Amino acid sequence: MLRAIKEEFLVPGFLASGLRAGIKKGKRLDMAMIYSQRPAKAAGLFTTNAIKAAPVLWDMERIKEGMARAIIANSGIANACTGREGLEDTEVMAKLSAEALDVKKEEVLVASTGIIGQRLPMKKVEEGIRALAKTLSPDGLFKAAKAMMTTDTFPKISYRKKLVGDKEITLAGIAKGAGMINPKMATMLSFILTDADIEKDALKTILEKAVDSSFNLITVDGCTSTNDTVIMLANGYAGNSTLKKDTKEYRQFKEMLNSLLLELAQMIVKDGEGSTKLIKIEVEGAKTTEEAKRIAMAVANSNLVKTAFFGEDPNWGRILAAIGSSGVSLYPEDIDVSLEQIPVVKGGVGVGKEEEAVKIIKKRKFTVVIDLNRGNKKVSVYTTDLSPHYVKLNAKYS
Amino acid sequence: MLRAIKEEFLVPGFLASGLRAGIKKGKRLDMAMIYSQRPAKAAGLFTTNAIKAAPVLWDMERIKEGMARAIIANSGIANACTGREGLEDTEVMAKLSAEALDVKKEEVLVASTGIIGQRLPMKKVEEGIRALAKTLSPDGLFKAAKAMMTTDTFPKISYRKKLVGDKEITLAGIAKGAGMINPKMATMLSFILTDADIEKDALKTILEKAVDSSFNLITVDGCTSTNDTVIMLANGYAGNSTLKKDTKEYRQFKEMLNSLLLELAQMIVKDGEGSTKLIKIEVEGAKTTEEAKRIAMAVANSNLVKTAFFGEDPNWGRILAAIGSSGVSLYPEDIDVSLEQIPVVKGGVGVGKEEEAVKIIKKRKFTVVIDLNRGNKKVSVYTTDLSPHYVKLNAKYS
Repeated sequence: MLRAIKEEFLVPGFLASGLRAGIKKGKRLDMAMIYSQRPAKAAGLFTTNAIKAAPVLWDMERIKEGMARAIIANSGIANACTGREGLEDTEVMAKLSAEALDVKKEEVLVASTGIIGQRLPMKKVEEGIRALAKTLSPDGLFKAAKAMMTTDTFPKISYRKKLVGDKEITLAGIAKGAGMINPKMATMLSFILTDADIEKDALKTILEKAVDSSFNLITVDGCTSTNDTVIMLANGYAGNSTLKKDTKEYRQFKEMLNSLLLELAQMIVKDGEGSTKLIKIEVEGAKTTEEAKRIAMAVANSNLVKTAFFGEDPNWGRILAAIGSSGVSLYPEDIDVSLEQIPVVKGGVGVGKEEEAVKIIKKRKFTVVIDLNRGNKKVSVYTTDLSPHYVKLNAKYS
Repeated sequence: MLRAIKEEFLVPGFLASGLRAGIKKGKRLDMAMIYSQRPAKAAGLFTTNAIKAAPVLWDMERIKEGMARAIIANSGIANACTGREGLEDTEVMAKLSAEALDVKKEEVLVASTGIIGQRLPMKKVEEGIRALAKTLSPDGLFKAAKAMMTTDTFPKISYRKKLVGDKEITLAGIAKGAGMINPKMATMLSFILTDADIEKDALKTILEKAVDSSFNLITVDGCTSTNDTVIMLANGYAGNSTLKKDTKEYRQFKEMLNSLLLELAQMIVKDGEGSTKLIKIEVEGAKTTEEAKRIAMAVANSNLVKTAFFGEDPNWGRILAAIGSSGVSLYPEDIDVSLEQIPVVKGGVGVGKEEEAVKIIKKRKFTVVIDLNRGNKKVSVYTTDLSPHYVKLNAKYS
């Protein structure tokens, strides 16, 4: 069964590997490599945190060319706040990978995730890179996904194969998340691979938009990490005619990418540290998408709302308080709130359906619908509850 | 001993009372009244939440006159999101108090705190108001403070008696806090009483400034409530010549008020829901006060920082990540972080003093010093750690 799953994750022209180099404690995998058999178009999005890890700084420079051959990644140590030495370590990772793969170091992107402030054990990393290059295989993506995990409880991988125009296009994505999941990109690494050929500019645009309506609409704890990285590689093995903006094929591919990233994003929230529930916050009837998003995020990030969800307490007053604290000027009289089909607030006032609401909130997965009744814009974000386990996990992380 | 404390809280010309009307479960006090024996100058500050509780809306109208005679307050139910009926209930509270005290209802300010969305049991409230009026006494302030408590574990009261010019001025404040404690005012009620005489405008200004450097610099969970209220009454019993802005006496009084409010603010943080530590986040070397405050609040509100404090884990990487996510553009190379006298980060890089740092972080009370090294502005905010107990308390509040 597992074998069957692995085979599903083949993307023509890409090889991947994952292994244990010994960076993390225990027996877990901690290094991953992805290699494209020919130069791939590359696009990337990175953390908005002013303090960026060394590999993020490296990638931001490299990605400007819009081309790459490989990604080398590690979990366990973030290589953030490590100064000049950290930058050198990143460059060494790129250089060693380039040597092992017979490409240029400028063609290698680097990603790290884990604890901030520690140096990487470069001897182990070096051995890891050589072993990764030797074990690259077409079905190695699942192992690579496992090797990216930190507090994740399951590897996150998503896959699509679909006709775009008259060519079958393959698209696969792997991700890690768990803590520090936040708008403006979750603390996450995600690598998206496709055999489609696409113009550099179109790739950049399509990735930005897809991230905006997936990874940028999830939150676990409102914290933004130093290492967030989404990289997409497109190697053209499918033999399609190069995808250009504003064509039918581009839109088909865009839809495919959006759905892939949304699936990965939901996996990340579902696996949020210590979470017991996956909650969709749907804000509708907004004047602008921006105000809908602000309100949805204010609710999704409220500790008081999230603890009430954990306690299965239909305390809608906290939802209203969070809406009101979003900074958007509004009138409570306009606001309706439902837990799925059960109205709990009409015109800013409770309707006394707490007993029915409890049934919804007891589910592992439910939707909170907030209607501002003043426009037709709509945004959905995904969040988790806040459990004592989140606190415990994060109290002793380092 | 308790008796002695109570007597300390006398403010000439003010009477207060507190009792159990039966709004809350259990045996706890839940209604309080404060009465000034002559018309008092009044100023108030209220929640910035767009969704304001009925008593807040009432007070915001009333306070415009700048005069008041009494405050009626209850805990247990916030009278927020209760629509037109809630507004009527607030008005009835003012009216009944006015009748019992033989003043005008427009001279009565109202404050409520507790669960959002429920109607007040007006029969009990009515009986409570009559009993409160009958039990008013010069030493009733401590009982009033007790009657405001929700999840607070101790009543918060602070007191000053000092020469201002050639007159002895008395100043007392009571407060409740505990959860939803946040910048832009904590979820809190606070009533400040003084026998000083002061110009209406000067009272307003002095209160705003004192709140800005006390209640607005504390945070427990970053949530802003629907009911935040700070009211200050000045009844002139001291017989001083009316305090005017930009005089020596005004500055003396201002200092007295600042220190009183800071003490109350610290009590609120100390009693933050489920907190085990009181932490001062001091940002110095900033270009502007605004950027210092943004960074301090980003650190003070980070769940990841707060859980690390609870776990006594000197994970300074999370402090840097929070600094970087504040939205202030900065260079990590400039940043130093110390835990009191122990440097943990120099120029954005760890200095490896974790063992010494653990000793600081194990204390019940400590200071994190963040030096941006690019200016001379400085702000301190107060926060708590985040414990599993916070989650448990808030999971089953209603």
